[in-house]
This record gives sequence, C-alpha cells and structure tokens, in this order.
Amino acid sequence: MIINIPENSDFSIHNLPFGIFSTSDRSPRAGIAIGEHILDLAALGELNVFDFNPAVFKKEVLNDFIGLGKAVTSMVRKEVQHWLQDDDSILANKPELFVKQQEATMHMPVHVGDYTDFYSSIEHATNVGKMFRDPENALLPNWKHIPVGYHGRASSIVVSGEPIRRPKGQTLPKDSKTPVFGPSQRLDFELEVGFICGKNTEMGESVSTSDAEDYIFGLVLFNDWSARDIQKWEYVPLGPFLAKNFASSISPWIVTLEALEPFRVAGPAQEPKVLSYLEYEGQKNYDVNLEVGVAPESGEETTVCRSNFKHMYWNMAQQLTHHTVNGCNIHVGDMMASGTISGKEENSFGSMLELAWMGTKPIQMKDGSERKFINDGDTVIMRGYAQKGDIRVGFGEVSSKVLPAK
Amino acid sequence: MIINIPENSDFSIHNLPFGIFSTSDRSPRAGIAIGEHILDLAALGELNVFDFNPAVFKKEVLNDFIGLGKAVTSMVRKEVQHWLQDDDSILANKPELFVKQQEATMHMPVHVGDYTDFYSSIEHATNVGKMFRDPENALLPNWKHIPVGYHGRASSIVVSGEPIRRPKGQTLPKDSKTPVFGPSQRLDFELEVGFICGKNTEMGESVSTSDAEDYIFGLVLFNDWSARDIQKWEYVPLGPFLAKNFASSISPWIVTLEALEPFRVAGPAQEPKVLSYLEYEGQKNYDVNLEVGVAPESGEETTVCRSNFKHMYWNMAQQLTHHTVNGCNIHVGDMMASGTISGKEENSFGSMLELAWMGTKPIQMKDGSERKFINDGDTVIMRGYAQKGDIRVGFGEVSSKVLPAK
Repeated sequence: MIINIPENSDFSIHNLPFGIFSTSDRSPRAGIAIGEHILDLAALGELNVFDFNPAVFKKEVLNDFIGLGKAVTSMVRKEVQHWLQDDDSILANKPELFVKQQEATMHMPVHVGDYTDFYSSIEHATNVGKMFRDPENALLPNWKHIPVGYHGRASSIVVSGEPIRRPKGQTLPKDSKTPVFGPSQRLDFELEVGFICGKNTEMGESVSTSDAEDYIFGLVLFNDWSARDIQKWEYVPLGPFLAKNFASSISPWIVTLEALEPFRVAGPAQEPKVLSYLEYEGQKNYDVNLEVGVAPESGEETTVCRSNFKHMYWNMAQQLTHHTVNGCNIHVGDMMASGTISGKEENSFGSMLELAWMGTKPIQMKDGSERKFINDGDTVIMRGYAQKGDIRVGFGEVSSKVLPAK
Repeated sequence: MIINIPENSDFSIHNLPFGIFSTSDRSPRAGIAIGEHILDLAALGELNVFDFNPAVFKKEVLNDFIGLGKAVTSMVRKEVQHWLQDDDSILANKPELFVKQQEATMHMPVHVGDYTDFYSSIEHATNVGKMFRDPENALLPNWKHIPVGYHGRASSIVVSGEPIRRPKGQTLPKDSKTPVFGPSQRLDFELEVGFICGKNTEMGESVSTSDAEDYIFGLVLFNDWSARDIQKWEYVPLGPFLAKNFASSISPWIVTLEALEPFRVAGPAQEPKVLSYLEYEGQKNYDVNLEVGVAPESGEETTVCRSNFKHMYWNMAQQLTHHTVNGCNIHVGDMMASGTISGKEENSFGSMLELAWMGTKPIQMKDGSERKFINDGDTVIMRGYAQKGDIRVGFGEVSSKVLPAK
C-alpha cells in the first residue's frame, strides 16, 4: 500500500470518495480521501495518466468531472484503487501527490443547482404527525403513495466546519393571535443523507426506477437545520421556507454509489402497493450507520442519536423517478436529501424535536446540562459509516457550530 | 432619434430593458430592446465606450453584467438613452450595432441560482381559500403577517417561446381513496411578475425594506405553470412540488426598476399592522397593466384576464426583506416571483382556476370553444405595460404553447 491507512478509517481502500480541498499552497482542487491523506487529483492529472482532459480536477467544484459520466468517474476510482495497492505504481515515491487531511481545508464539493428535500422516513413522518396533527392518523393520506418532497434553498448549503448563525424570524407565542419577531427558540438539526445527481436530463424527460441509479453520483451526510417555531407559524399552506433556508450543512466527501455497493439491503415492504411508475426491482436501500453528537461550547460531546439509512421507506431511485415523472429536469450537482432519518427506537430519532418529544423529554448531556433543542455555542456532529466484515466505507462527518443570532 | 420607434412600442426610449439574444450570425450576447430593434451591446462594447471590461456583454447570461452593480448598469442605460436621442452620437451610422427583433432568438437572460415564489395577492389567496378551505375564513391566520413564499425549481424556468409539455403525475379521483397516474387534467397558468436580484448578500446578512430595492435589478413577466389536480393531492403538508416544477416561463427582457420609477403607486393599507421589520416608507407598488390571452391551436386569441401589478398586498421590498431576515443569502440572478396577481373583479383573476372558478364557470373563447383549464395546443400569452401620459414602458410578452403529454 502506497499510503498507510489506519484501522477503522472511514476512508479505506474500499471507499475513495471525491471532494474539493485546498492547502496553504494549493488552490481549491479535486482530491480523493485515503486514510488520513488526500490524493491530489489535480497534481496526478498533470502526470498525463488519464485519457480525458485533467483540467476538470483544477476546477473549484466537481461538477465538470462528474459530468464526464460514470464510465469516467468509476474508471478514475478503480485506477486509483489499483495504484494505491501497487507499490510500483505511478503513485509510488511521489509524496507531492498527497497532503494530510489535517493540513487541508475542505470546500463545497459541487455547485448545487437545485436542492430538493424529501420526507421519506415513515418513522419521522409518523412522529411529526403524532406531535402536530392526530396521533391516531399520524400519516397523511398521500404519504404512502408519494415520496413527498419540496424544494429547498441551494444558496445556503455549506460544508462541514462553517458555523451556522441562529436565525431570527416570526413565531406565534402560545395562546397569542399575534406573532412576535426574534431569534428562534427551537433550533434543531435533521439527520439526513443527500445524494448528488451525476447526469442531466432534458425538460420533459423522465427517469425510470431501473435507470435512476445511473443518475446518482454519490452521497453525503446532510444536516437540514430547522427552526421549529418559525416553521410552525409559516408552513401552512405552502411548506417550510425561512425555517429551513438559513442553512444546510453537508459532509465534504462524496461517497460514490459504487463504494456503497456491498451495503445494499432490501427496503421495507411498501403497502399499499405503489403506482407502477414507482415499482422497483432489487435492493435499493443502503445499510449505513448514522449518529449525531452534540458538543456544548466547553463540554464533552454527547451522542444523542443512532440511526441507519436503511430505514428509509422510499429509496433514492423512487425519489428521483418521482421527481422527474412530470418532466422536471435535473442537472449534475443537484442535491436531493432524504428527509430526517428516524428509526423505531426512541434513541434513533433524527431530530431534537423527536428525541426530546417537543421539549417534554429533555436530553441529558454528559456535562450535566439538558437539551430540548440546540443551544448557542453547541456543535452538532453527524457521522456515518457502512461496515461489512473487514470492509468499512465511511462518510467522515459534518460538524457545525451554532453562533448566536446577530 | 437614431432608431425609429413605433408609437405605443413597449420598448420606448423610456424603457431600454436588457436581454440575451442571438441571430444566425451572432452568438448569444447582451442587448437592449429599442422599438422593433435590439442594440447589440457586445458590438457596442468593442467600440471602447465604457470604462469597464465589456466582455460581460459577450456572456450567455447577464449575471456578470448585473453583478457590476447599479452604478454601472444604470450608467449604461442612461448613456444609451442619451446616445439614441443624439443623431451625432457614437451609435450614428452604425447599422451593424442594431438587429431587428424579428430576426433574433431570445434566450434566458440570467442564470437563476435560486427561485422563490411568493403568494402576495390578497385577492388570489382569498379566492384559493374560498375554493379549497373555508369561504368564511378564506385567509389563513399567518397571511397578513408574513409575505408567504416557498422555494421553486430554478432548472425549469424557460424563456418565452419554449413550448411546455403537459405534465404527468399522481392525482386523486373524486370519491376515491387511491390515486391514479396520468397526464394532468387541470393544467393552469398563473399570471405573475418576477424580480431578478442584482446584488449578493452573505449568509447571516439581512436586507432592510429601505435598502431592498438596491438588491432588485429588474422585472419580467412570469407564468408559473401549475397542474391543479397534481397540486391538490401532493401539497399537504410540504407545499407544491411536481405540480409546479415541470416549467415556469418568463418574458425575455428585464425591465429595470429605474424604468419603472414613474409608475410607483401606494400599496394597499396593511391592517393589522405588520411587524416592524416589514414596515416601509414611500410608494413601493408599481402600476403595470397585465393581461393574459389564450389562443387555441388554430383559433383566434381570447383575452381571459386583465389585472395589474399594483394590486399586490405585499410589495417586493417586503418580500426581499422577509426572505433575508433569517440570514438566508441571495445571489445575483436569483428570481423571486410575486405569486398570482388577481384583482377584485372576476375578469382580473390571474389563473384559470379562479377565472373559471374550479371549472364551474367555463370561459367562452372567440372560436366558440370553452375553457375550464388549458388544453393541449393552446398558447398562453401574458403581456404587461405601464403607461403615464406619453411615457410607455412595456414588458413585451411571455408566450408558450402547450404540447400534449409524452
């Protein structure tokens, strides 16, 4: 092996995710994470080892590279995987091709044209329905027929490490008919996984569930920051707006679908039967362990949630097929997030809203404090990894500190 | 005058809107509409008449030009206005600077980063509330406190002339509990005006109502295509999605706020009083006549709606201020649409849904046919102009033909 890879590294030889990094003497460029290092693809490209123009690796985002298509991107990953394991390969004795992750700054890996957020965890949708609507009829009538989704804000998607400013907005105090203005009192995270589109469609074109994965380049962890009090007052009838669009945070490394291939599992049975355009064959869920930690400003981190991406009721292929069934066009770099990923157990709920059940069951923190929602100064860290025997493929983390409202 | 301008032209010397055009021998580039002609700004830029790099006029979108700021864009408009009226100016005896509009193809004038649709006409919100909710309590409790808005799809915004494909999707037949899949049976237009952002903000930054117009470059007509049957089944609880994101159509010429200055009027009284961050001074509505025509495949056009942009309850400054009050960042080229602009009179409603009142009052067409919604083969044309004495400033039109579902 060209590079030493620590045991249990998220960035094993089986992973090789793509991202955009810079260092004090390297401008933003494409790289592949391996162990505690990054392979500098821009520098590698200069060695003329690829049969496409390696200028795509010098761009500030991966869109042009991804747009070359899976035949190219998969080949690059496979070649690098091979070279890393061959001590006489093109990568040998070229320390200038590698930088330490701790010396690098990570950037947004893609320019996101459009961002869509789904609502595809039945446990999450049920929990929200129980809290805000009718506990006996928690799921709305359309939920099991439609992978419900809505459009979010692309401009405010930022990468791990960028602090988040607590939003201000209108809320309706209890028993009041008149709203007030001020900082949100119910700032929350949502544990999600987002996929990044790898192929364009034209307006009017639809993608079938059997073709959908060709249009998915890879996945990132996604924190869909939410202001519950703003959301509650604004969201009827046109959906969440200012409660969500102040920020979303993603992990910097895009884990390819190829790397996740060993972790395919069957999704839950869908009953009633879905409409034929949403039917699918094969295993289209992925077994990815997910967890959320909250670290107070000067306290130890507490793990508040352990969930799994396999819980999704609607899979990514169904989401993408539904999104395009009306002819809506998609572009390379578009982001589609899963919606909050909750499991059945109380400690697997993917938001503070559910974990602390609307503030009625505060979460105990290791430093002795309690949380109903997220405090100023807290850092929220999401992590994810898939493991099967010796094969580990991880996402790293998305970590964001909350700053007080301005 | 360098160019002959027909009487009642939308593109008078007082207007001078910006757009992107091409001809058989000119690649897409920036231009200014004047009468029946276009001033080729890329060609003008080559004469070294501006004190900035005129390469911005050779781009395929106006974002970089707009991003130079109003000091520059206003100066260009003023200079051109002056030169057009001076028979000895730099424009004189240079026919190569002008092309006939009928020989040009218009393109999307900007790259739209994010698109937001508001819901700011009280008449429209009231009509919808009467039809779908409670006639006695048509407006929802938040409506007079919040300029309600939601995120839409940027990728499917297209320019006038592009045909629109009837979307397919899920709908719930009357008295059924199970949805069906097929072409929408209730395809509708929504008469809107969209504004294009002219200045970036950073995440965490907010824009006051007094500064908001500095962030608005100009306006276009906006047809927010809607599939009412898909919308009805999908929109609770997260808002419209596939019912809207298959297409939106805009007029190609961006009419600047400066050109609309003579047409400022007072907006409606806002009662109850809005929260202080939404208060504003001065006249922030604009008196722009709007109309919608529907032309069957081989029949005469029927004007089905006459409305006015001045009806808006929430003005653009309030919309932009609300949008950024939580720190949501905006970019040059972002599009924010008004929401359907309905007036009080029945013939001023801005959608077929309202005009034909959910199909109960079909619209009579000049060719003897009736319309409850929009048929395959119909062309929907929206026009808009402001007039005060001799001063006329028009938008041209957004015209789109509906093709049958694939």
